Amino acid sequence: MSGSTSGRGEPSRPAPARRAGTVRTVRPLPIAVDTMGGDHAPEEIIAGAVDAVREHDVRLVLVGRAPRIRRELDRHGVIGEIPIVHADEALDMGEGALASWRKPRSSIAIACHLIKQGRASALVSAGGTAGVVATSRLRLKGQQGVMRPAIAVTLPTRPNPTILLDAGATADVKPEGLVQFAALGTAYAQVLLGTERPRVGLLTIGEEPGKGNKLAKRAHELLASGNHGIEFAGNVEGHDLLRGDVDVIVTDGFTGNVALKTMEGTIRTAFAEIRGAMTSSAAARMGALLQRRRLQGLRDRLDPDTYGGGVLLGLNGTVVIAHGASRARAITSACELAHRLAAGRIVERIREQVSLTRTHRFGRWTHGTGDDRHPERTDGTPPEPADIAPEPRPTEETAPDGLELPGGKP
Amino acid sequence: MSGSTSGRGEPSRPAPARRAGTVRTVRPLPIAVDTMGGDHAPEEIIAGAVDAVREHDVRLVLVGRAPRIRRELDRHGVIGEIPIVHADEALDMGEGALASWRKPRSSIAIACHLIKQGRASALVSAGGTAGVVATSRLRLKGQQGVMRPAIAVTLPTRPNPTILLDAGATADVKPEGLVQFAALGTAYAQVLLGTERPRVGLLTIGEEPGKGNKLAKRAHELLASGNHGIEFAGNVEGHDLLRGDVDVIVTDGFTGNVALKTMEGTIRTAFAEIRGAMTSSAAARMGALLQRRRLQGLRDRLDPDTYGGGVLLGLNGTVVIAHGASRARAITSACELAHRLAAGRIVERIREQVSLTRTHRFGRWTHGTGDDRHPERTDGTPPEPADIAPEPRPTEETAPDGLELPGGKP
Repeated sequence: MSGSTSGRGEPSRPAPARRAGTVRTVRPLPIAVDTMGGDHAPEEIIAGAVDAVREHDVRLVLVGRAPRIRRELDRHGVIGEIPIVHADEALDMGEGALASWRKPRSSIAIACHLIKQGRASALVSAGGTAGVVATSRLRLKGQQGVMRPAIAVTLPTRPNPTILLDAGATADVKPEGLVQFAALGTAYAQVLLGTERPRVGLLTIGEEPGKGNKLAKRAHELLASGNHGIEFAGNVEGHDLLRGDVDVIVTDGFTGNVALKTMEGTIRTAFAEIRGAMTSSAAARMGALLQRRRLQGLRDRLDPDTYGGGVLLGLNGTVVIAHGASRARAITSACELAHRLAAGRIVERIREQVSLTRTHRFGRWTHGTGDDRHPERTDGTPPEPADIAPEPRPTEETAPDGLELPGGKP
Repeated sequence: MSGSTSGRGEPSRPAPARRAGTVRTVRPLPIAVDTMGGDHAPEEIIAGAVDAVREHDVRLVLVGRAPRIRRELDRHGVIGEIPIVHADEALDMGEGALASWRKPRSSIAIACHLIKQGRASALVSAGGTAGVVATSRLRLKGQQGVMRPAIAVTLPTRPNPTILLDAGATADVKPEGLVQFAALGTAYAQVLLGTERPRVGLLTIGEEPGKGNKLAKRAHELLASGNHGIEFAGNVEGHDLLRGDVDVIVTDGFTGNVALKTMEGTIRTAFAEIRGAMTSSAAARMGALLQRRRLQGLRDRLDPDTYGGGVLLGLNGTVVIAHGASRARAITSACELAHRLAAGRIVERIREQVSLTRTHRFGRWTHGTGDDRHPERTDGTPPEPADIAPEPRPTEETAPDGLELPGGKP
């Protein structure tokens, strides 16, 4: 691995997909960084990665065009210190689900392959959310027992952050899927916030159990039935999102994405109002400046650049999706986040949490296999390592919803 | 009608439910005001109503406990000038769907009855949203051709307001229902904003047609197919809500309610940040005060108190739902709004718009009857005027979702 390029991507040692996240009790495997995704790739990505190695002692593998990466590393004076894995292609920011089939040698696909080979523990990318989600779903596959993946984001609540999921990976989900999201969120909060029994709220449109759409009502029933390792705190509403009353808020990817972007748009409007007031008296200008800094704080806290991006949970490997406009600092935080999650063995934690929800029988999917597109794998044997360049066969079924995280990604 | 109480509520002349909104080319029938709903009922409600009559020349009927109303009118020196219809019962703020069955003589039920009798054109209430929606759905019934009602709210965009619907009347809706909401919103924008061809956006989670959940994707297909009198402007996202790019934004009642409340909660958090900054220097305090006034403007614009509340569309009569905390000024605006909608013959406009969507065949519901709970009424004959005190028979089917508008209603 040491600095050598292995763009061909032949598995040096075949490892089952579930290998990721199994050992690592002391120090996790390196984090694979996609140097080709994002508005400021590769310069800012590599600069951020170098900082993560230098200042935070995070182990990394840089994936992308090797000559270019070497040139950047040389500029930072760390040539030879960070391993490089070559990848020819990059996903364009606007590319969605189909790109994951069209470009089997994209930097993200290669990074996923490193995870499957057991050579990396997690992946960081500032590429377009739709492409990153589609590629990693295709390459890493769903964790055993997990029906659908979810993107977790950290809301800027005080004093403690609240985790919202799903922010847009799975637009259509069943009530049982929401219970699983609660399990994913619980595991995530345990690792990230160190909360032993995170309180989970269900996003809906009324405080009482009977309020909401069919999905939320049924999910409430399931969550309230207890007995699945989730500390259910009841319903929360849109105006509770920034209140910090719970540790985790669960919703479907459609509602979660709308809510997050609504928050973002409202903050932007509030900013515009402030700016409008700044043309008045000197005192007002002065005050407005201070105000603005204060609101800037709120915007920063809401900005994926600062909170390290969304995290795609539920696959055989953790994927940290940094903001498309990420600069070095954001990439450093994303690497740190990926490192913390890997060190906390997030994939195993999720497996444990999800298995608790499965001990409580939910009708049809009690024996879910995790990868609902391959129902033949029900015998518990690990899937064969998928070829890195499979036949492109895009189908309606496998094309994910292709959502974007808020924050201005195309 | 002149000042007499008719609490018994016998129909003085039987009129078909669809009567509401048929004649009125010059001056609409009076607006029925529920004097018993809201945190400050009846004083503030009646004070607001008196202002609407005095200053805006709106014709009203006050519904509620007659002796109390008379006392208030006496205090304002207008006794005998505004007709009163007696009602014994009030819905409590927290009461939901069942109350509409339990209390057939509630002020809202009586007000609905006045509309059905052709003695009023619309209804204004500051009662709890769930109770008002449930009662008026039950009493007024759906307009012919309308599958489900929707609550329209006016977003504080600049320079022109944007109408968002559904804000919470129908949590579960089919794609065809969203197309109808687009028709309701189109009619509403025509009457309220005077826009001849209002531009309608679909709230989803990506700009491209293929983005969203199943509901939004299918609704996009239907809306984009044209040929139903709707000026479809494509998808809009959460951060576009306050941008004012379109005249109408359509979504299901669950997503709409979450988005509205998220907006409200975010504004509240921004306020708290401002307040936090106000303890610093004198200049900051000064500036913060000015800022705060500016943000107060935004909050006011977001506040149902100012924008006149939500409007329940799609029933045989328009229902303006004022904020529960409404004071006189908000009630005056709500009365004016109801008056403008009635004068603009909103119910007829909706009928016309919805009929346009029906000329374009949408599979199953081309011949919808409006009241999908009574499929036997398919022959086009108007429903019999329902008895004002039917047997209470609450069922799962008829109990609406009982949602609350944002703004702190219980």
